[in-house]
Amino acid sequence: MTNQPLKAICLLSGGLDSATSAAIARERGFDVYALSFDYGQRHRKELESAERVAQAIGAAKHIVVRFSLREWGGSALTDDIAVPENRDEQEMSAAIPVTYVPARNTIFLSFALGWAETIGATHIFIGVNQLDYSGYPDCRQEFLDAFTATANLATKAGVEGQRFEIEAPLVQMSKADIIKEGVRLGVDYGLTWSCYSGSERPCGVCDSCILRAKGFQQAKMADPLL
Amino acid sequence: MTNQPLKAICLLSGGLDSATSAAIARERGFDVYALSFDYGQRHRKELESAERVAQAIGAAKHIVVRFSLREWGGSALTDDIAVPENRDEQEMSAAIPVTYVPARNTIFLSFALGWAETIGATHIFIGVNQLDYSGYPDCRQEFLDAFTATANLATKAGVEGQRFEIEAPLVQMSKADIIKEGVRLGVDYGLTWSCYSGSERPCGVCDSCILRAKGFQQAKMADPLL
Repeated sequence: MTNQPLKAICLLSGGLDSATSAAIARERGFDVYALSFDYGQRHRKELESAERVAQAIGAAKHIVVRFSLREWGGSALTDDIAVPENRDEQEMSAAIPVTYVPARNTIFLSFALGWAETIGATHIFIGVNQLDYSGYPDCRQEFLDAFTATANLATKAGVEGQRFEIEAPLVQMSKADIIKEGVRLGVDYGLTWSCYSGSERPCGVCDSCILRAKGFQQAKMADPLL
Repeated sequence: MTNQPLKAICLLSGGLDSATSAAIARERGFDVYALSFDYGQRHRKELESAERVAQAIGAAKHIVVRFSLREWGGSALTDDIAVPENRDEQEMSAAIPVTYVPARNTIFLSFALGWAETIGATHIFIGVNQLDYSGYPDCRQEFLDAFTATANLATKAGVEGQRFEIEAPLVQMSKADIIKEGVRLGVDYGLTWSCYSGSERPCGVCDSCILRAKGFQQAKMADPLL
């Protein structure tokens, strides 16, 4: 036993959920190693937010890995496909939306696993949520469980008996409860960015803006970004 | 039923194994979509080999995804760690060597999965081998099985009932048998590069050179690269 704090890789998108997830990691006593991706998404504004969130949370380190998923596209976030607007929740939940990016969380978690093994971190925090989400398959607990099993077979550390844990503390929470938890933990949501567009102000009409607005409304709080 | 050929993503490192694996995919009737990675490895010579192999095999497309695993290192291939030399097989199999790159095949397969889903490919070919290999955990069938389960939960296509298959046709073959199979399929091993160094000629003393030499010797063939 040592008194050295445990390390956790925390995926940070710049959005509300991942900022809250990282704050939970910090509260649980982990040193936060923040990881973001410049993958060819529609705008870099969310990466500026991720940088601010990492600083605010006192991350030990923040790495932005760069690659381009525009090599093949296939998503409204990485290709010339329009982002849906003004959809109600029934429309959002009718099908997996065009903003789904093929294998994105598998790619993100794989990089997190590589960094985790290198620095001796055992926990990877990801802010996915399967309730107030957009129907992405790689935001579900069963996906995370499968990835955990893969991680423990993929790595030297896993073979040698270390167990990697994928922590998704928000997976069963409503957006309103996520916001209340983040406020309790001192997260400044004014630093975060959820909108799929990178304009000066959030567009207010994309799925992500609509889910965020509903969350603040149900939490009976004002969004500091607006 | 259509007569359209099936598509396969084929991971191509530039080495002997992945060239053979891709040739097997082609023989099975797949259109080959070749995928390589410029990830901060010791040299780019293997990427030039991958390009030549992709051309020779008649790949429908060859994409090189670029990112840097030197952000965290942790391997002799991505960090300032010496590559072992002149080891016999007993020394090689005593422990997972320092050339192991944390989570590398998990990262590579994740990108392959993203491209596969985008273009409607169902099969991903990877040239891993668990016999004459260097003890890497992510070259074993049990890892590939776990990744397959993850892939089918991670994706929209998987949720909608399509099944992704990770094909590792060499996983149980000796290096000599791999070479014989490749020669039968017309693979020109003079185009491939296995050495961990990027000198003009293979070093002959790294694990990869030693395993390749043993393979050609046991297959009773000359390495066209030498």
